[in-house]
Amino acid sequence: MKNIYTDLAKEAVELHDGQKIEGVRTREYQLSQHICVSRVEVLDRAGAQALQKEKGTYLTIECALLHTGTVEIKKALVEALRDELAGMLPKSPCVLVVGLGNRNITPDSLGPRVCEKLFVTRHIREYLPELITNSDTGVCALAPGVLGMTGIETQEIIRGVVERVHPDLVIAVDALAARSVSRIATSIQLADAGIAPGAGIGNRRQALNQQELGVPVLALGVPMVVFASTIAYELTEHAVLASDLPKRSKERLFDTMQEMEGNDLIVTPKEIDAMIETVSEVLAESLNLALHPKMTPQEIHALMS
Amino acid sequence: MKNIYTDLAKEAVELHDGQKIEGVRTREYQLSQHICVSRVEVLDRAGAQALQKEKGTYLTIECALLHTGTVEIKKALVEALRDELAGMLPKSPCVLVVGLGNRNITPDSLGPRVCEKLFVTRHIREYLPELITNSDTGVCALAPGVLGMTGIETQEIIRGVVERVHPDLVIAVDALAARSVSRIATSIQLADAGIAPGAGIGNRRQALNQQELGVPVLALGVPMVVFASTIAYELTEHAVLASDLPKRSKERLFDTMQEMEGNDLIVTPKEIDAMIETVSEVLAESLNLALHPKMTPQEIHALMS
Amino acid sequence: MKNIYTDLAKEAVELHDGQKIEGVRTREYQLSQHICVSRVEVLDRAGAQALQKEKGTYLTIECALLHTGTVEIKKALVEALRDELAGMLPKSPCVLVVGLGNRNITPDSLGPRVCEKLFVTRHIREYLPELITNSDTGVCALAPGVLGMTGIETQEIIRGVVERVHPDLVIAVDALAARSVSRIATSIQLADAGIAPGAGIGNRRQALNQQELGVPVLALGVPMVVFASTIAYELTEHAVLASDLPKRSKERLFDTMQEMEGNDLIVTPKEIDAMIETVSEVLAESLNLALHPKMTPQEIHALMS
Amino acid sequence: MKNIYTDLAKEAVELHDGQKIEGVRTREYQLSQHICVSRVEVLDRAGAQALQKEKGTYLTIECALLHTGTVEIKKALVEALRDELAGMLPKSPCVLVVGLGNRNITPDSLGPRVCEKLFVTRHIREYLPELITNSDTGVCALAPGVLGMTGIETQEIIRGVVERVHPDLVIAVDALAARSVSRIATSIQLADAGIAPGAGIGNRRQALNQQELGVPVLALGVPMVVFASTIAYELTEHAVLASDLPKRSKERLFDTMQEMEGNDLIVTPKEIDAMIETVSEVLAESLNLALHPKMTPQEIHALMS
Repeated sequence: MKNIYTDLAKEAVELHDGQKIEGVRTREYQLSQHICVSRVEVLDRAGAQALQKEKGTYLTIECALLHTGTVEIKKALVEALRDELAGMLPKSPCVLVVGLGNRNITPDSLGPRVCEKLFVTRHIREYLPELITNSDTGVCALAPGVLGMTGIETQEIIRGVVERVHPDLVIAVDALAARSVSRIATSIQLADAGIAPGAGIGNRRQALNQQELGVPVLALGVPMVVFASTIAYELTEHAVLASDLPKRSKERLFDTMQEMEGNDLIVTPKEIDAMIETVSEVLAESLNLALHPKMTPQEIHALMS
Repeated sequence: MKNIYTDLAKEAVELHDGQKIEGVRTREYQLSQHICVSRVEVLDRAGAQALQKEKGTYLTIECALLHTGTVEIKKALVEALRDELAGMLPKSPCVLVVGLGNRNITPDSLGPRVCEKLFVTRHIREYLPELITNSDTGVCALAPGVLGMTGIETQEIIRGVVERVHPDLVIAVDALAARSVSRIATSIQLADAGIAPGAGIGNRRQALNQQELGVPVLALGVPMVVFASTIAYELTEHAVLASDLPKRSKERLFDTMQEMEGNDLIVTPKEIDAMIETVSEVLAESLNLALHPKMTPQEIHALMS
Repeated sequence: MKNIYTDLAKEAVELHDGQKIEGVRTREYQLSQHICVSRVEVLDRAGAQALQKEKGTYLTIECALLHTGTVEIKKALVEALRDELAGMLPKSPCVLVVGLGNRNITPDSLGPRVCEKLFVTRHIREYLPELITNSDTGVCALAPGVLGMTGIETQEIIRGVVERVHPDLVIAVDALAARSVSRIATSIQLADAGIAPGAGIGNRRQALNQQELGVPVLALGVPMVVFASTIAYELTEHAVLASDLPKRSKERLFDTMQEMEGNDLIVTPKEIDAMIETVSEVLAESLNLALHPKMTPQEIHALMS
Repeated sequence: MKNIYTDLAKEAVELHDGQKIEGVRTREYQLSQHICVSRVEVLDRAGAQALQKEKGTYLTIECALLHTGTVEIKKALVEALRDELAGMLPKSPCVLVVGLGNRNITPDSLGPRVCEKLFVTRHIREYLPELITNSDTGVCALAPGVLGMTGIETQEIIRGVVERVHPDLVIAVDALAARSVSRIATSIQLADAGIAPGAGIGNRRQALNQQELGVPVLALGVPMVVFASTIAYELTEHAVLASDLPKRSKERLFDTMQEMEGNDLIVTPKEIDAMIETVSEVLAESLNLALHPKMTPQEIHALMS
């Protein structure tokens, strides 16, 4: 199972093929015709080991039509995500939203794009508080770029900013990798366990979480890619069960798999540019409404323009 | 073999596993340390049938380091492609370069991006000929967008323009799909057989070629993606040779394959945005030098700024 | 008055300082709290000469808050423009929308951006008519780029396409230049007199109008810039009325004015990137609704995704 | 003089019309046919008051052809700027480059664009030092966005990062505003006095300088706009010297001027998108060569790809 990579706790559960997993509790319900909500709780070390996910609660909002971006679907999803977010936010907080990822790599640009659509208010509350009378939340946002662009670990940058800004909460937004292509631009994961930027690389020290930053960290993400190596591995895995597979075929399978792994290849829909725009709108709108619960979308848009 | 898609004649040859192919002639040589040139000639109907490629000559310039975009590699490739192009251009022509593809879908935007970097001269020759004294070529360029954006078949648009502009030659530039991921951003194909925009869909009527447009058509392209279905098919093909593969595994393989096919999924490197920029620079620079053989790169840049 | 450039017929009227203009009829009314509609009819040659505008009707929809992009303002404007467009469209037509301008020059990119947001249907009606049962309009769109990019006069390209596609109507969308900065991103002009791309250069032969294309041409545009020379000229004009202006000051005024003229300088708001996005959404949505009058915005969005 | 805004110390000197300025020393020489270098030293409080610039040295490299972006001009400028930078850099430092400005507002995007083209090495030196054997400089870079996007003063963000990263030097890159349109994309200013992001607003507390950050700050910038109010003011200033200017003209002049001031209007060349690309390449290349003096451009490009 080790070559199958997924950022989704729900998929990590599915990899256990329906067997009971020690230290993990799951629940799922249909919210509306098109939207399904599920919850995976990683309760202890055994659960964390089994799923390769940190202890915490992972919520998934699924909607096979999210990527279509129709007005109704977007509205329903925004409301579903807003409600879930609302239940996890402290009152009157100062919130720092961190947009992870590289804005110049389309499928990795979700975090920076969400930040660009946020209703940022911390400076207004400081300099022109009379402009916003029906919200007490000071929202600030930073999309610092990735290690290869900055030369600085994202965690270092965020720690530096947290130490000066003292937010009550950090929300980290990131593009995720899934196991199944059907998850791309259709599943939203919201977790209270923090996030490790550029994970899969396995640098646990550099996570954004309460332990490292000293404040709670919510992680919000949507899969935009499947690693090609994951697909190659899954296909190969099924194939090599066959004991009479000719040696030449087996070699070819492994060669293909290794080519996929060695080249940072991703599987993504052709329309990823449009999908990422739609998804970033849904996440930003949900965050804006959850962070300013007394404001209408109209009031927020009017102040953002 | 039917589910494996490639735009490269060279890969179509390779699919025959080294067996002699009726109606096809191939040649290959190492141009320099990093650059290999090969030529596939589709001589007749039998060859066209065998390779699923139109009759004509398909040149491939390969350089595993093209995507790295270093100055030396780019220079060497530009010279190699310029020389091959030069051998295929008529003298003092009016040339229409057509940039195929969708500029808003990153891996499909090669054609439009090359057009933006071209030294376009037709209007200068008409209105201000004294500005260019050392070139007789009137270059014009059009990136009309794809059928879904225009509602008009690309061939219709180009025919309309060709009938008014009367070029001596059309050069169609397009992003290609390969069979092997190692071809992405590393192989340049130049063919005298024309091109069918959005091929694979099988609408032969809508090709851009001499028969349809009434002028010769060169096709210039570089693979930027592999269809996920191609990879899934290849992996599965090797697997199902095994007669003792459990039924459940076989089903899962076919399910995965069909999911790949039905969703317009592509495999592409994470750095595709940067790669397409590098590749478009190499193609545009080669075209500029081949179309204006008496001009230096410096003279061309000076007039383009 | 010769150095003051404006694409707006309404501003051309205002330049006459309230005096009666032979051959010109004007009307104006307040449509709603924020929206004012005015109509300038250029009736004959005398009127055309006086306003430097072709014979025809020029409608202006003004809304000082257009650029703010709030949901309500956009909705009200979309409805106003949709209604005016509806009155000028033939029934069941094939319509070609032409996006004029350069997509890589932000304030000139309005036309191409509107095209990208259009609900294009001509190919659907041809290949999959069952998908759209409540619209008979075949919409197609082309943003060919400017002369400097293509080497081909826009009129030549559009003539070539019109001769093959045979639309009943051409709608040309373009970014305009105004005299007053208060017009930028606040006034929409809709005219039945056609348009000369890159006007001000004075190449009357290359206009897009019924005479040249053989089909009626509606021109739709919004000012996104004021030429710096216009502002410099206006300021200087008022100044030089003063007979006792010191010679050195006069010279400095003319020097500044000429610097403005000679350098293709524009005056534009810092937020032009955001404004052009808002304006292009309003124009595209209005066109989509006017061209498919039996469809709701929801139905259109669902089919566009 | 109060309504004329310029970020260039050299223009601030010119506003004194050749008169001697207390506390300011200037020097100027022709470096080559196309490049002129000048130095303005603000020596004390009197000089700072007179020029409205902080104490320090302001170097200006001028090249009327910079915006043309030809290969030779770029090369000559890169070498000139590299040499000046080299003289101001400490040995073996850790350098933090800060890209000021808003990447989504074209004329304000110079800083973020330069950061994207930098050879960032701090993380390589930490994790893979064997990759770079001929440079001891650890370069890191951050383009945090502007206050309206982040809700956090840029100074706060940079202080937080400086306190964790401990650079020996900060280089702040920003788009500037000039007084004269002929300066746009033609003058490079390098100053050792730090910089106030979003200056003109007059928030002195928020400067990036040694006093605030605790490390030396170089400021590197190029004018990309002139405020429309500056031009309006200058034209009006000359005009109102005339005592017999009719009252109506005077009023119109002041109205126009105020319209310019109140609307955040800028004067900029139409080709600003292309110019900012060229200028960011020149600045980034110069920084890369100055920060890694033992490396060739080829070695740097090879490692950046």
